[in-house]
Amino acid sequence: MSFELPPWKIIEEAHERIRPYIHRTPILTCQAINDRVGSEVFFKCDNLQKVGAFKIRGATNAVMKLSPEIAARGVVTHSSGNHAQALSLAARWRGIPAYIVMPEDAPRVKKEAVAEYGGKITYCRPTVADRQITADRVQMETGATFIHPYDNDDVIAGQGTAAKEFLEDQPDLDVLLAPVGGGGLLAGTLLAAKGMKPSIQVFAMEPARVDDAKRSLAAGRILENESTQTIADGLKTNLGERTFPIIAKLVDDVITVPEEDILPAMRFVFERMKIVIEPSSAVPVAPLLTGELRFPGKRIGVHLCGGNIDISAIDWGSIPPMRSC
Amino acid sequence: MSFELPPWKIIEEAHERIRPYIHRTPILTCQAINDRVGSEVFFKCDNLQKVGAFKIRGATNAVMKLSPEIAARGVVTHSSGNHAQALSLAARWRGIPAYIVMPEDAPRVKKEAVAEYGGKITYCRPTVADRQITADRVQMETGATFIHPYDNDDVIAGQGTAAKEFLEDQPDLDVLLAPVGGGGLLAGTLLAAKGMKPSIQVFAMEPARVDDAKRSLAAGRILENESTQTIADGLKTNLGERTFPIIAKLVDDVITVPEEDILPAMRFVFERMKIVIEPSSAVPVAPLLTGELRFPGKRIGVHLCGGNIDISAIDWGSIPPMRSC
Repeated sequence: MSFELPPWKIIEEAHERIRPYIHRTPILTCQAINDRVGSEVFFKCDNLQKVGAFKIRGATNAVMKLSPEIAARGVVTHSSGNHAQALSLAARWRGIPAYIVMPEDAPRVKKEAVAEYGGKITYCRPTVADRQITADRVQMETGATFIHPYDNDDVIAGQGTAAKEFLEDQPDLDVLLAPVGGGGLLAGTLLAAKGMKPSIQVFAMEPARVDDAKRSLAAGRILENESTQTIADGLKTNLGERTFPIIAKLVDDVITVPEEDILPAMRFVFERMKIVIEPSSAVPVAPLLTGELRFPGKRIGVHLCGGNIDISAIDWGSIPPMRSC
Repeated sequence: MSFELPPWKIIEEAHERIRPYIHRTPILTCQAINDRVGSEVFFKCDNLQKVGAFKIRGATNAVMKLSPEIAARGVVTHSSGNHAQALSLAARWRGIPAYIVMPEDAPRVKKEAVAEYGGKITYCRPTVADRQITADRVQMETGATFIHPYDNDDVIAGQGTAAKEFLEDQPDLDVLLAPVGGGGLLAGTLLAAKGMKPSIQVFAMEPARVDDAKRSLAAGRILENESTQTIADGLKTNLGERTFPIIAKLVDDVITVPEEDILPAMRFVFERMKIVIEPSSAVPVAPLLTGELRFPGKRIGVHLCGGNIDISAIDWGSIPPMRSC
């Protein structure tokens, strides 16, 4: 099977398209982390992005790229997470409806967030099959365009703008670490980073318990997660038909992270960097802090993908200090 | 009594002196806050500064300005808060000792932070008198230079560099809101902001329960706080001999903030802006979010002074939503 990589210019075009809407998020550094890691570490803070996550990049690119006639009928997706909020906001910017299919048992805070950004929620039963059936029905009834959370080239291109900004602002990076769930961010990051700087190494980071990316790359085909028991709720999804081949072709390696290191890393970032990150963002940070992952003499870029947590749902006192090995 | 304002150039000199050591902290905006406030609000994020607070600016300026002979004997202060950490780190950068006098009952986390930055702790009894006596003794024994947390022109000049950066990066600000405790940050902010842009309005913000600044300005002399019962632990101190006259001459007004609005504002910033701020930083934010303070059509700058909280000591679930009036 031959696969043609999407060209680098889709990232550039996406960036031009979404630039007026999104934040150019800051890159932060932390001396305490540099000292501990023994390398310079740069953090691209998409937790400080609109809707609190990089997802607004891809959703905005997909929504703004639609022709006026197609756009007028709206967009639809099934998601209860950051993509649902992002699509709702991007649709509001464009003045079109966003139909969001959510399981009826989704957390109240997520329902409220989607509603606040103007998304129209249709509830479904909490099964994968019913989500798809319900989304298909909404699509048929409204003529809305389905925007997949990650398996969509426009979404992938939009997510890649984060790495483009990162390398524009910090061109001397040697290594990039990006979390992988469905692979939209990772695929976009690979297209952008390898397009701009072929010598850069890009590593995919995933919780050891949801290691579908590692196993899929080893097998040469998309495998499913055998468990979804991770605190990093943004990384439970499997790779998709569009994201897998890009990742398979370009990624340097997939690194898995022990579950027990995720919350201590999140707390460490909170206390030392004074920023709020969600567990998915802590996944690439954790093995740097434990010392399991080392890049002596290299400049390391870490993509902090989002900051959407329910702070009152976390028992902060029970999180142990970050371990060192 | 005649009082000569320190010249604007002390801020410029301080900035040149400390620039290699400190972060130029980002300025963030938040659409949800702009919508709620009805004005554009810009946040200068000194919670993302080294040691997690603006205090490193003044401490570094004071330490770096000492002559080599004087510096070699070290610096001393009595503080259990951010200034102690800042002075310890600045002294380490200079390669000189920092002697920190702390009450023996100071929280463990503060003792550890000072020790981590290399400060040499001398414990005293938890009274104002014993703090001063102990600091005097350390000073006599070592020949170290006493660096007051705020009532020191070099400290004031250093703190003013935050407002200088703010107006350099966002020159169209109409209004600046800065918290006031001892007045080091506020005095520096006033010298910098009014020096750079005489038309700007600068308001001092303090918890209603520790309204010494408001009462002192009304009385024309330094009055003490009648209570220290505020969650904003950085703002309990009284104005000083150096800070009071600068503030009295330049500030537009002092605005007091109801105690019950401080934690909801802190949580709002945490959840919407994804940054960690301490209660003192939430003081200028609160009346904007409630709507009690309005500046229609103006661009508002808010100085977020620090982000040092013990996250596990806060009962997040018990903090009510931000009220609107």
